[in-house]
Amino acid sequence: MTEANITLAHGSGGMAMHRLIRELFLEVFADAELSRLEDQARLPGMAGRLALTTDAFVVDPIFFPGGDIGRLAVCGTVNDLAVGGSNPLYLSCAFVLEEGLPLADLYRIVRSMKQAADEAGVRIVAGDTKVVPKGAADKVFITTCGVGEIPNGLELESTRIRPGDKILLSGPIGDHGAAVLAARGELGMDCPVASDCRPLNHLVAHLLTACPHGVRALRDPTRGGVAAVINEWAWACGGCLRVFEMHVPVREEVRGLCELLGIDPWHLACEGQFLAVVAPEVAESALAALRAHPDGREAALVGEVSALPARTAVLHTVLGGERLLDLPEGEPLPRIC
Amino acid sequence: MTEANITLAHGSGGMAMHRLIRELFLEVFADAELSRLEDQARLPGMAGRLALTTDAFVVDPIFFPGGDIGRLAVCGTVNDLAVGGSNPLYLSCAFVLEEGLPLADLYRIVRSMKQAADEAGVRIVAGDTKVVPKGAADKVFITTCGVGEIPNGLELESTRIRPGDKILLSGPIGDHGAAVLAARGELGMDCPVASDCRPLNHLVAHLLTACPHGVRALRDPTRGGVAAVINEWAWACGGCLRVFEMHVPVREEVRGLCELLGIDPWHLACEGQFLAVVAPEVAESALAALRAHPDGREAALVGEVSALPARTAVLHTVLGGERLLDLPEGEPLPRIC
Repeated sequence: MTEANITLAHGSGGMAMHRLIRELFLEVFADAELSRLEDQARLPGMAGRLALTTDAFVVDPIFFPGGDIGRLAVCGTVNDLAVGGSNPLYLSCAFVLEEGLPLADLYRIVRSMKQAADEAGVRIVAGDTKVVPKGAADKVFITTCGVGEIPNGLELESTRIRPGDKILLSGPIGDHGAAVLAARGELGMDCPVASDCRPLNHLVAHLLTACPHGVRALRDPTRGGVAAVINEWAWACGGCLRVFEMHVPVREEVRGLCELLGIDPWHLACEGQFLAVVAPEVAESALAALRAHPDGREAALVGEVSALPARTAVLHTVLGGERLLDLPEGEPLPRIC
Repeated sequence: MTEANITLAHGSGGMAMHRLIRELFLEVFADAELSRLEDQARLPGMAGRLALTTDAFVVDPIFFPGGDIGRLAVCGTVNDLAVGGSNPLYLSCAFVLEEGLPLADLYRIVRSMKQAADEAGVRIVAGDTKVVPKGAADKVFITTCGVGEIPNGLELESTRIRPGDKILLSGPIGDHGAAVLAARGELGMDCPVASDCRPLNHLVAHLLTACPHGVRALRDPTRGGVAAVINEWAWACGGCLRVFEMHVPVREEVRGLCELLGIDPWHLACEGQFLAVVAPEVAESALAALRAHPDGREAALVGEVSALPARTAVLHTVLGGERLLDLPEGEPLPRIC
């Protein structure tokens, strides 16, 4: 394409839009189903159950150490499928572009999506593009939707969590949130850490193969961080989830940034880690399986489940105290994903 | 909820977001799968083929005669599934909300989505909400993704169009585009027409039941209007699609608005009509079937397919002339959907 920037004509249904679709999206994504250019992708039926998930991505800035909005959009949706136990198969992606967005930025984002999709082994089979006038959106928003297949018999469900269960974590927390906050440049310093943004489906599949029984629930701690997942699980199962601070891996750079900003690493988003609740009898083998995989070398056993107090998330601090692991109420961290 | 407007906290993963999700989205959409609040919906497998489609909606204004951005988001995605011959089953929806959006507007939009979903008979099973600071988006954008099941044996495909086929249209064109353009208020007049925004799946199913063989392809003329669909079909099948202006229903109000604005009704979006190409031997019965359904009373036979000139869309004007039915190049109609 000869233009340097997105114009309103790229979203109008006319020739400019057709060129954008053919020369950028179809060229980079290179999927036979997408290239049919029909209003919908047509895919084989599935014997297992169908998993469906969606996420809108509005991260600011759109490029950050360790990733960009495109990589994030693919990984975020792949990971939402993976933690449900499903094999991620297909993605759709819808773009809202701001008039004036450099086409070079869009190319970079779209190539990054393709690379992340290839890493995960998913196909991008459907898409849409809208352009809004300058000032009506901030550069680019991407919404992805993912379809996966859940093997029959596999039941991951937070309501299955019970007293005695153990809580595992696949690796250090807060890298994504810290990287994006630092990349905003408001700190006047170089970004000390890269986002952990990566597809988790291979690590999840490895865990479920090693432990076909006894994995109760998985969840990736994105928006709201580990605190949000632990609270949601406590509400869902009715018990008390206890996390031991001393066992939770947090990089020094992330810890330093949290102190500087007065925020809590428990509230920082991860985009390449997951929490798992497993039955006590498989905790050891599950942890060993995670650590044996290249994506899970820093996995740790970080907590356990008790019956009481009901519906409670508790943090056991390094100093030996206990406090509620609460959700942020008045401290929004907007546009982290 | 006690707040009157969307705040950044509604998108931060904390308590305010949880209240918004529980008190608004779960309450109105009232779907058991959505209410599980897991990262993905889990649905039965399917014997037929799986259809997947997505669309981002950025329409301006968000409320217009005949609909709103919520109704549009549901109908647009349902219709993309329907014209592929699939039975629409499930929708996901992702919201990008601008800080300051009145909660009353969001309620109205979400209720409208639920009503449209009920009309179509689809379930809203997955969702996501992001909030961006004031000025980073324009009020609200909604991206829907739809999953449907295509019965085995049904093959609607624009490459199957061949010389001699007939082109049918389900009703008058341009109502949606005209309604939105007029509703922008730039004309200094009342809106003369309501959007045709409606789910088409029941009318499509009725047609395919009446004519199980001989329907080659269906398409709803949204962005880019009838001109875009006719051109895409001409490219896909390699032949010449001819449309007879005198047979194409256009409301007087729409025609008047087009003359006032110097635009072409062929480029105006519809959100409740479809074009069909059918084999000549079923054209009469297909038209009769459409007209017998309450949603298709104004259906018409509007054109035909010839072999030459190759890859060409031709309009036969009321005055007896012929011209290319071309795509808009320099006349963008942004944010019509």
